[in-house]
Amino acid sequence: MTRINRNYLKLPGSYLFSEIGKRVNAYAAANPDKKIIRLGIGDVTQPLPSSVIDTMHEAVDEMAHKETFKGYAPDLGYDFLRNSITEYDYKKRGCNISADEIFVSDGAKCDSGNIQEIFDADNRIAVCDPVYPVYVDSNVMAGRAGDYIEEKGCFSDVIYMPCTEETGFAPTLPKEVPDIIYLCFPNNPTGATITRSELQKWVDYANDKGSVIIYDAAYEAYIRQDDVPHSIYECDGADTCAIELHSFSKNAGFTGVRLGYTTIPKKLVRDGVSLHSLWARRHSTKYNGAPYIVQKGGSAIYTEKGQSEVRALVDYYMENAAYILDGLKKAGYSVSGGVNAPYIWLKTPEGMTSWDFFDHLLKEVNVVGTPGSGFGPHGEGYFRLTAFGSHENTREAVDRIVNFSYNL
Amino acid sequence: MTRINRNYLKLPGSYLFSEIGKRVNAYAAANPDKKIIRLGIGDVTQPLPSSVIDTMHEAVDEMAHKETFKGYAPDLGYDFLRNSITEYDYKKRGCNISADEIFVSDGAKCDSGNIQEIFDADNRIAVCDPVYPVYVDSNVMAGRAGDYIEEKGCFSDVIYMPCTEETGFAPTLPKEVPDIIYLCFPNNPTGATITRSELQKWVDYANDKGSVIIYDAAYEAYIRQDDVPHSIYECDGADTCAIELHSFSKNAGFTGVRLGYTTIPKKLVRDGVSLHSLWARRHSTKYNGAPYIVQKGGSAIYTEKGQSEVRALVDYYMENAAYILDGLKKAGYSVSGGVNAPYIWLKTPEGMTSWDFFDHLLKEVNVVGTPGSGFGPHGEGYFRLTAFGSHENTREAVDRIVNFSYNL
Repeated sequence: MTRINRNYLKLPGSYLFSEIGKRVNAYAAANPDKKIIRLGIGDVTQPLPSSVIDTMHEAVDEMAHKETFKGYAPDLGYDFLRNSITEYDYKKRGCNISADEIFVSDGAKCDSGNIQEIFDADNRIAVCDPVYPVYVDSNVMAGRAGDYIEEKGCFSDVIYMPCTEETGFAPTLPKEVPDIIYLCFPNNPTGATITRSELQKWVDYANDKGSVIIYDAAYEAYIRQDDVPHSIYECDGADTCAIELHSFSKNAGFTGVRLGYTTIPKKLVRDGVSLHSLWARRHSTKYNGAPYIVQKGGSAIYTEKGQSEVRALVDYYMENAAYILDGLKKAGYSVSGGVNAPYIWLKTPEGMTSWDFFDHLLKEVNVVGTPGSGFGPHGEGYFRLTAFGSHENTREAVDRIVNFSYNL
Repeated sequence: MTRINRNYLKLPGSYLFSEIGKRVNAYAAANPDKKIIRLGIGDVTQPLPSSVIDTMHEAVDEMAHKETFKGYAPDLGYDFLRNSITEYDYKKRGCNISADEIFVSDGAKCDSGNIQEIFDADNRIAVCDPVYPVYVDSNVMAGRAGDYIEEKGCFSDVIYMPCTEETGFAPTLPKEVPDIIYLCFPNNPTGATITRSELQKWVDYANDKGSVIIYDAAYEAYIRQDDVPHSIYECDGADTCAIELHSFSKNAGFTGVRLGYTTIPKKLVRDGVSLHSLWARRHSTKYNGAPYIVQKGGSAIYTEKGQSEVRALVDYYMENAAYILDGLKKAGYSVSGGVNAPYIWLKTPEGMTSWDFFDHLLKEVNVVGTPGSGFGPHGEGYFRLTAFGSHENTREAVDRIVNFSYNL
């Protein structure tokens, strides 16, 4: 008789964004005349850069002729893409990463969910609180998180690193030593960043304790300040303690195109084994590569034209971030993030939980955000707005919130 | 101190196709003047159908304009694709499967590797021997296979179902009752199929014992005989015991485009839990959908033009299968498969192991096949050739083998 993986039953409720989708769809169905503006899920709204479009058309044409048709991609990704990544994302930033340390994938979400597989089930993980749900949920599924403690809203075996007003919404080094540390800068959901010298402390800590840092750099394109690192490999010694995740979703608008990569330096060894070799084995056994057309499209951002188009896209969204920050501040909200990040983290009004505020915004001003409590217990009382809308929608949403607030 | 998943260290050698790639690359590098013909890995060679190309161009154009741009896909796939799948792959065959029982993915390899995650680590799996390596390897990684027994070439906790000359290279019901049974028809690597009434026995067995069948139908498009089922749901009661995997790789040539789907009927419950709900949770937590462009491209095969183009592609490859079968038989080889399948399974010459024959063919006639032993202990002494080459290459490869055999 087949038994199921009962760890799945420990997951409270449905995946955060599925739950949001359900509530929004229910409201929309009941109120077909309302114009709902979504600043909740981190989905982009602007079209792909023209360099990407042109390159994808060419790649589609290649697939139409047997002379240029491409079957299975190389296990770890096409060289043309891995070489460009090395050049633009690493060498230009002084990071000593080579092309064969890069694993091309269908996105940072999948990689961040799958990477835990190469570790033993007994490792203790540390996560920011609040945190992107995939880190915790994927570890729950693997039996690494212990049991869910309903009254605390957290798992018994996970080390939570509170990101609060006092810590500038970024984590501080945990007292209990974790085996695996998930970090995300610019942070999702709080939008916080830390400086290079602050990140160096984490790297030194991990090397000292023998921990591994899983560093999610999905939002690095939004960094504006010089002392904020784009890659953890800008820190000395990161190549012996850190795995880095990258995405094409938020810089090039690839949320529906699906492309990302994971970097595992060959010097990263734990338990006597190269983590690079383990991930290579997983990749070749359980994955079959990102589509040629998509890898080609992604490679287009590593050209002069592509780089300038990506900058323009990021600038576009950062104008939204500034508008949101400004409007909410004027309306009296306590807000952070939005400077080196596309996320704005705001305190919910007195007496309102995160989900109260979600329902409130949805019903009163037809704006969708993300309840902070969905990201962890210390997210309660907070709310995330994203800068990924169109200018028009973002302005309208902010104006609606501001006007409604004045009417309170 | 981080510990690694030591189950990975139980995997013998590298992934089969990586090993083949290495040997071929080494030979090619040392012999740059030789024309190597690859009939090894199951990669297709003919271009995508024009209906797919046209639709993908349209989809790329949609991504270029904000009015038609698509971000994150719906969790389980776009309705336009899931509805077409239901209509063409199920309803037309009398299978009672609905669109919301279909999970669109980036291919059957990933799904066949990931599906085991929703089951407890203590389940016992049964696999054909020989077998597509991903089923076993993914269970080894999860700690479900026990230890590797070097002298037997198999894992201590896996139930192997020998597929030999005596069984027509198809499995027979195992004596020990497995919790999870992996079946693949048309079979990879042997090319064997079974009739609907034979498959019904497996369905009845699984329902009787409370087992789950993971049915890999990646090659169903190659079936020519009426009494061979295209889907396990053609059998009565399969919706309470079977998960089915489908691929766009071998019918529409999507090996480098990446699209597939997994069907889990809502009536399939084990351990008191709906397997559909577990997979839905995994999908939404650890996966982010197949690219819009790819899903659009895949939907094009479910049109009159697309269906006829896919038939033509399959016919093309089946001409190769016939040529290989015919040539090898004439040369005195003992061969099977190749009738309802793109794979030809041949007995290696007396005194040669599978890898001996691999090296022999590579060096003597510069043809790449797949050693049967790479698929399991009962594959030793056998060799797989695929029909996925071009007509020209396939004929040349077969002629080379035949001529060399006559010279023995």
